[in-house]
Amino acid sequence: MPKNHISHYDLNKLTASKDALHNKEEVLILTPMSKFLPEYWENLNKLTYDHSLISLGFIFPRTTEGDDALKELENALKKTKREKKLNFKKISLLRQDSNSLQSQLEKDRHAFKVQKERRSMMALARNSLVFSTILPSTSWILWLDADIVETPANLIQDLTSHDKPVLSANVYQRYINEETKQPDIRPYDFNNWVESEEGLKVAASLPDDEIVVEGYSEMATYRPLMAHFYEEKGDKRAEMQLDGVGGGAVLVKADVHRDGAMFPSFPFYHLIETEGFAKMAKRLGYEVVGLPNYLVFHHNE
Amino acid sequence: MPKNHISHYDLNKLTASKDALHNKEEVLILTPMSKFLPEYWENLNKLTYDHSLISLGFIFPRTTEGDDALKELENALKKTKREKKLNFKKISLLRQDSNSLQSQLEKDRHAFKVQKERRSMMALARNSLVFSTILPSTSWILWLDADIVETPANLIQDLTSHDKPVLSANVYQRYINEETKQPDIRPYDFNNWVESEEGLKVAASLPDDEIVVEGYSEMATYRPLMAHFYEEKGDKRAEMQLDGVGGGAVLVKADVHRDGAMFPSFPFYHLIETEGFAKMAKRLGYEVVGLPNYLVFHHNE
Repeated sequence: MPKNHISHYDLNKLTASKDALHNKEEVLILTPMSKFLPEYWENLNKLTYDHSLISLGFIFPRTTEGDDALKELENALKKTKREKKLNFKKISLLRQDSNSLQSQLEKDRHAFKVQKERRSMMALARNSLVFSTILPSTSWILWLDADIVETPANLIQDLTSHDKPVLSANVYQRYINEETKQPDIRPYDFNNWVESEEGLKVAASLPDDEIVVEGYSEMATYRPLMAHFYEEKGDKRAEMQLDGVGGGAVLVKADVHRDGAMFPSFPFYHLIETEGFAKMAKRLGYEVVGLPNYLVFHHNE
Repeated sequence: MPKNHISHYDLNKLTASKDALHNKEEVLILTPMSKFLPEYWENLNKLTYDHSLISLGFIFPRTTEGDDALKELENALKKTKREKKLNFKKISLLRQDSNSLQSQLEKDRHAFKVQKERRSMMALARNSLVFSTILPSTSWILWLDADIVETPANLIQDLTSHDKPVLSANVYQRYINEETKQPDIRPYDFNNWVESEEGLKVAASLPDDEIVVEGYSEMATYRPLMAHFYEEKGDKRAEMQLDGVGGGAVLVKADVHRDGAMFPSFPFYHLIETEGFAKMAKRLGYEVVGLPNYLVFHHNE
């Protein structure tokens, strides 16, 4: 057996600090990908954090859509490599093992009745991805959805500098305002929220295996949503405590996942996927925080 | 970037089958270790499954006890290597990051009041261990406690041949029977159990954050315990459905952990650690099975 097959890791010496780049902390960026958007890849490559400290992990559903996304990402990888700009530490491409839901049109995708199944599958994909790619040397994990097409170039430095166990950016979307005919922005992800009396009442009224999902009139929770706390001229570093998070752009200290925080595919306190993850992180004793004025942008479909 | 830094993994082609050895399936043996027992190491080295398909992962608490155990294991590794008998694929030695409980004497260690804290710490150790060492190529994970000093040499082939997502052996202990003055065996691990009406009633009567722990008169659950189902002349392959498992010798398909099954350090359905893990595996849709007549032996302290 070669000597290097015995590896020592002291998890106590592994830091996840507010000076992440200075301390050469390794970041693992994880993206479940059912569609490849060139803008996602361009934005990712523009991140200014030292790429030699960044590993990438992708998971693709076993659908025609997933096949296409994988091929397109591979082509993008080849192109970036030809241009000698591919400097990431390691890139892992995973095909999902479970049966993936077939592609859904945007209007179907958000229908309340398919939410539970879709998000349950997504939870399994996220778990397979993180638990297959996290290394003893990983300090931070950045969950970055495949449809996030624009972030500040200093995204990783900005988020790590808050030194929080779980930190979510605010996901908005660019569009043309029909009234003003001008480019404008609007809130997109409503899964970053603060628990409410009403939300707890709704949850308490549900059978054990039912979930509360945010953003549907069928189930009004009156939870304060981070999406609505954005102030154009507000401090970009302003923080707010959250109880649920979405998956758009969420930075997590690797220790939170190592302690066992996962994305429940089953109702956990009536929550699943990223929202259940936030609850689980809190049950493990970690703080969950959001940045209402720090925007990242979702693709406009 | 070297070409091999882009890795493809098709989780669908990764098998965990009843012909594990024939299919060259990789097994990861995980052991939280606060004490090094030479008999544990000897037994491990005698396992007949192809060692080049076996990786080992250990996690040591940050205590004097943990320091000593690490040193002793390192010495054992060196000795086995000198003898050119060290053929495992990879060995990972992790130091725990969280504050570990100081050593407790055997009689203290089982006192009801310290159980919750001790097992909560153990849950975190198990999670850190599995989520730092599982690879996309891992088919099976064998949880083998550091105080298991005797198993059949075909342990891995025997357990994998049942083709179950979660499978627990029955943990017994050798001792000298004071009446007969003869060597005898007695049940040791009472965490392999079937849920009972009484157990569910006890759980329902508890505040949300309290746990049910098996084997204490303070909390009689009347759960059928696998430890009591052993029949000396019974079929070694006999199976029984379980609701809780201990950690002595438990084989888990890696996909169960990849899907997110972890060891809750907080009360999950009033269960923690290995028992909470069994509940979580079931919530993820997996079967949990025990082998009442398949014995492994715990060190006699």
